[in-house]
Amino acid sequence: MIILFGVFVRYNGESDAHWAEFKMARNITSDIDNDFYFRYPSFQDVHVMIFVGFGFLMTFLKRYSFGGVGFNFLVAAFGLQWALLMQGWFHSLDYTDGMIKIGIENLINADFCVAGCLIAYGAVLGKVSPVQLMVMTLFGITLFAVEEYIISDLLHARDAGGSMVIHIFGGYYGLAISWVLYRPNLKESSQLQGSVYHSDVFAMIGTLFLWMFWPSFNSATCDHGDGQHRAAINTYLSLAATVLTTFAISSLSQKHGKLDMVHIQNSTLAGGVAVGTAAEFMLMPYGSLIVGFCCGLLSTLGYLYITPFMEKKLKIQDTCGIHNLHAMPGVIGGIVGAITAAAATESVYGKEGLVNTFDFTNEFKNRTPAVQGGYQAAAMCVAVCFGIGGGTLVGLILRMPIWGDVTDDNCFNDEFYWESVICASLYFSM
Amino acid sequence: MIILFGVFVRYNGESDAHWAEFKMARNITSDIDNDFYFRYPSFQDVHVMIFVGFGFLMTFLKRYSFGGVGFNFLVAAFGLQWALLMQGWFHSLDYTDGMIKIGIENLINADFCVAGCLIAYGAVLGKVSPVQLMVMTLFGITLFAVEEYIISDLLHARDAGGSMVIHIFGGYYGLAISWVLYRPNLKESSQLQGSVYHSDVFAMIGTLFLWMFWPSFNSATCDHGDGQHRAAINTYLSLAATVLTTFAISSLSQKHGKLDMVHIQNSTLAGGVAVGTAAEFMLMPYGSLIVGFCCGLLSTLGYLYITPFMEKKLKIQDTCGIHNLHAMPGVIGGIVGAITAAAATESVYGKEGLVNTFDFTNEFKNRTPAVQGGYQAAAMCVAVCFGIGGGTLVGLILRMPIWGDVTDDNCFNDEFYWESVICASLYFSM
Amino acid sequence: MIILFGVFVRYNGESDAHWAEFKMARNITSDIDNDFYFRYPSFQDVHVMIFVGFGFLMTFLKRYSFGGVGFNFLVAAFGLQWALLMQGWFHSLDYTDGMIKIGIENLINADFCVAGCLIAYGAVLGKVSPVQLMVMTLFGITLFAVEEYIISDLLHARDAGGSMVIHIFGGYYGLAISWVLYRPNLKESSQLQGSVYHSDVFAMIGTLFLWMFWPSFNSATCDHGDGQHRAAINTYLSLAATVLTTFAISSLSQKHGKLDMVHIQNSTLAGGVAVGTAAEFMLMPYGSLIVGFCCGLLSTLGYLYITPFMEKKLKIQDTCGIHNLHAMPGVIGGIVGAITAAAATESVYGKEGLVNTFDFTNEFKNRTPAVQGGYQAAAMCVAVCFGIGGGTLVGLILRMPIWGDVTDDNCFNDEFYWESVICASLYFSM
Repeated sequence: MIILFGVFVRYNGESDAHWAEFKMARNITSDIDNDFYFRYPSFQDVHVMIFVGFGFLMTFLKRYSFGGVGFNFLVAAFGLQWALLMQGWFHSLDYTDGMIKIGIENLINADFCVAGCLIAYGAVLGKVSPVQLMVMTLFGITLFAVEEYIISDLLHARDAGGSMVIHIFGGYYGLAISWVLYRPNLKESSQLQGSVYHSDVFAMIGTLFLWMFWPSFNSATCDHGDGQHRAAINTYLSLAATVLTTFAISSLSQKHGKLDMVHIQNSTLAGGVAVGTAAEFMLMPYGSLIVGFCCGLLSTLGYLYITPFMEKKLKIQDTCGIHNLHAMPGVIGGIVGAITAAAATESVYGKEGLVNTFDFTNEFKNRTPAVQGGYQAAAMCVAVCFGIGGGTLVGLILRMPIWGDVTDDNCFNDEFYWESVICASLYFSM
Repeated sequence: MIILFGVFVRYNGESDAHWAEFKMARNITSDIDNDFYFRYPSFQDVHVMIFVGFGFLMTFLKRYSFGGVGFNFLVAAFGLQWALLMQGWFHSLDYTDGMIKIGIENLINADFCVAGCLIAYGAVLGKVSPVQLMVMTLFGITLFAVEEYIISDLLHARDAGGSMVIHIFGGYYGLAISWVLYRPNLKESSQLQGSVYHSDVFAMIGTLFLWMFWPSFNSATCDHGDGQHRAAINTYLSLAATVLTTFAISSLSQKHGKLDMVHIQNSTLAGGVAVGTAAEFMLMPYGSLIVGFCCGLLSTLGYLYITPFMEKKLKIQDTCGIHNLHAMPGVIGGIVGAITAAAATESVYGKEGLVNTFDFTNEFKNRTPAVQGGYQAAAMCVAVCFGIGGGTLVGLILRMPIWGDVTDDNCFNDEFYWESVICASLYFSM
Repeated sequence: MIILFGVFVRYNGESDAHWAEFKMARNITSDIDNDFYFRYPSFQDVHVMIFVGFGFLMTFLKRYSFGGVGFNFLVAAFGLQWALLMQGWFHSLDYTDGMIKIGIENLINADFCVAGCLIAYGAVLGKVSPVQLMVMTLFGITLFAVEEYIISDLLHARDAGGSMVIHIFGGYYGLAISWVLYRPNLKESSQLQGSVYHSDVFAMIGTLFLWMFWPSFNSATCDHGDGQHRAAINTYLSLAATVLTTFAISSLSQKHGKLDMVHIQNSTLAGGVAVGTAAEFMLMPYGSLIVGFCCGLLSTLGYLYITPFMEKKLKIQDTCGIHNLHAMPGVIGGIVGAITAAAATESVYGKEGLVNTFDFTNEFKNRTPAVQGGYQAAAMCVAVCFGIGGGTLVGLILRMPIWGDVTDDNCFNDEFYWESVICASLYFSM
């Protein structure tokens, strides 16, 4: 890693000490007109989502909290470095000297890339070894970078919050791996696959930080100015609508109207996924609410009906329910994005606004919104294919006996990997 | 909700894709000169306070952590949407097309509005059903919007951190509801109204995030530039002083000088409330320290003497002690605001600074600081009246038997509302 | 405190209501060109590190979670105020009226100053009374301010992230105190000096917030623009490399390749410390990775070999292992800083960039990078001397019997200081 960085990676114009010259060349008058100040607060929010959000969301298992938050930490830190290289080659290569020039936007994109892999981790949580996880991440990041290049550069599809690039890909990648690694005897052997009271409270830390900072996630890489502003508002509204729907459906579906903590922890977040692609479009506040409502409905019903069906019939064991939280809402997001792009008009966006929002410049300057809608749909298909195809392939690689596979008995059990579990019997009996 | 948003709500100038034209019309040269960049970091901090701060602060009950953080989540997400509409009608109506135009400042104000209702939730925590909570929030938000309109628009009182608008109103609103819903037999039946060791550690997460981000809360909607800067400094200093006072009083009041976690969790925050109104004024650093000192003293003594008195004599059961954390400090804040406003002079603020700080423009351009002080005092009375009056009214509505009231036996007990409490007996016996 | 603030402290130009005049005098055209907007997001991140990061990192002891997070809160709040005064006298004194003029940068620096004392707290965690802690903080802050003045003003050494000023000083200050307060009989009497499963999960909250926000810590007080941008990137990369190394070494060092939570909680952060001084220099991305790698290695090995050695042979009991997390990585950071400063050239930094980065202005305008490197090394020695000398002195003061010393039996036990530990036997037996 050090060697690769040594050979390929340098600072970009806005983070290099030559910034004074750079500034003068671009006629920039204030120090605050540096991409850093546009994006750093959002970057940190996204960072919190990756490490605390995903990490604590995965502490819900009664006996696998260390593994949830700890391996998440390992995978994310490894993925970040690899992603800087992989994405850098596609997006930040400076052709004058062949170097990757990195700045704050690269750090955010690396977090995004890692998010895709952590989503996949959710499907196999507790069932793979750390070495398998690393392999899964290595290939996942690489596939992600190629997929992103095809979607954003070749197809020129817009996907600010990554409904397609991140969530569809990550979701199906994880599900395909879980499908290949199917453990037929798992269900009987494991009474560990559940939560206890305070492991659920720990998981709520993850849920809330993901929920709160999702507007930053979807707006982090949008255009400066109105793009970021609008993306934050749309995401906020969609998420708020999802919470109401989730509580309602969760309560209606159970006997005595009791709520299920699994739904509250997960389905409340689906609205953020579903509004990812269209976040920077003129979705309109009520449009965001509609998306959030539909998604909360679908996601909660998914936990109730689709996940058990998938486990029984399709032989896909999905520990965290990523199909309901990422894959399905991602597809909704992709569809919403394609429709709203196709329906964009100059009267709604303004002449300059239309060009800026969809980046109809250079070789794409003659593209119309209708055509853009088609490309958005195509991008969604690319993401699905990469997810399923890549996941199946990587799953086969992970089945090789060299990665230190976990036995069924040791699934969902920290003791196998961590030293410091002391006198844990009492804790676990709860 | 979707229909109302569809009919009434649109993006404002800075979040609309027409921003390019808007920018040109206002002669804005840099993309970063968008209200989004002035307020987004503070918005996210406030957001964390609402969901993680209030949510985890209310996990302290040994058997009601799910209810604390979960219902807080539900109420906040519902309240946000309703607040955007209610506050929008009063503050962000565009008279040219009759639409509410929303931007980042509306999102912050909605969080503020929700804060008022969550404060009220603190008084009745564990004693009301989720349906009652929703009703309480619906009316609370509506009353808040009217009260805020009277205080900020009609009286033109300044209240950056909402000592009056949020804390006095929210505090008395909750106390009045709790008074109407008094449960005479509660005390005997409930040994559940207490904490255990690690529910207290969870609550400290809430306390710390509230404490740290309070400077953002008080500065979030201040004037760009020095106003936000000064508000953050004043709040920071006041809070720091409160912590010292609280530890000192807590230790002095107990036998053997032991500390009480209830004081540390709550009274340490009172300084942020008390400096809310005057945060953007030239309170001076030492002024902030004095306010924080007084408030820490009063709030801790409140937990020791006033709360038991209120429960016995006034028949007000206040689960979280919001009288000590919000109502009383809010009154102090209102008084401090009135005095410092009345004492403002041109030599301290500068000619332009005085006009900017108190917004002496348009129809208020002839108002003097002394008169402003009077209006600040009037505003405080309005907040108290709305709180007590509104709370009594809503309390009577909540006593109607249609909302699924909780029996005394089920108070402070999650099992009644949540599915996933498994083998909890051990946890709860602690 | 109130009196001192009353006599000495006022707002600075950017937080005073006279900002309008100030702005005009400096020819500033936009309200966002206020130091507040450059630094506030980083300030809040640093604030989170101090209160949640350090606080929760210290909750790992099975019976001292209240003490960890609670006394951390007390000490930090007290230290902040004292630091504003102490640092203000050296750095923010306005000679025209003899007042300390404070703004956002002072708040960040106060947080930095407090960080030094909290590091020292880590060495004596569970073994000192709150009164002793306050005394230790009082002297610590004072020594820090003098040391910082010597290093940054007299020697004109650069130390953006405080590897030397904060970590070396704080680390050796704490270790020296712990050495003077050595408790020979502690080891036998205490089976409380360990963690339980979920106190370790709580501690991970601390670790993750420290890890995530370290880029803000190191960049918070850097130059506007490229300086802050570069510091964030360097820190991010160094930390990522450290995580990988720590997991690898931790796994390799244990039988059966199990991971040790102590290493994951602490050593993963060492990379942030080590890159502190050089964060704003042109360290290059690969340079950051190398620093992070070395530091992860050294820090984890430190926990395995050096801490037990120190306890047995040197009679230094280091509860949290601050020698591995702060002192040693700080020394690495100082050395890296000295070397990279000495090696700086105009071709790498640009003419203007070199002057800006090292602030070669006024009386230092003829200083060369080579000379600067020498001064950096000298600064490191100053920090070590202040740490060891000051710590020994303050340790002797703390041995006086007037501060309510803790007996060996009550070490690592909350019950002695906190009221609300109810039925804790069950919890503690875990």
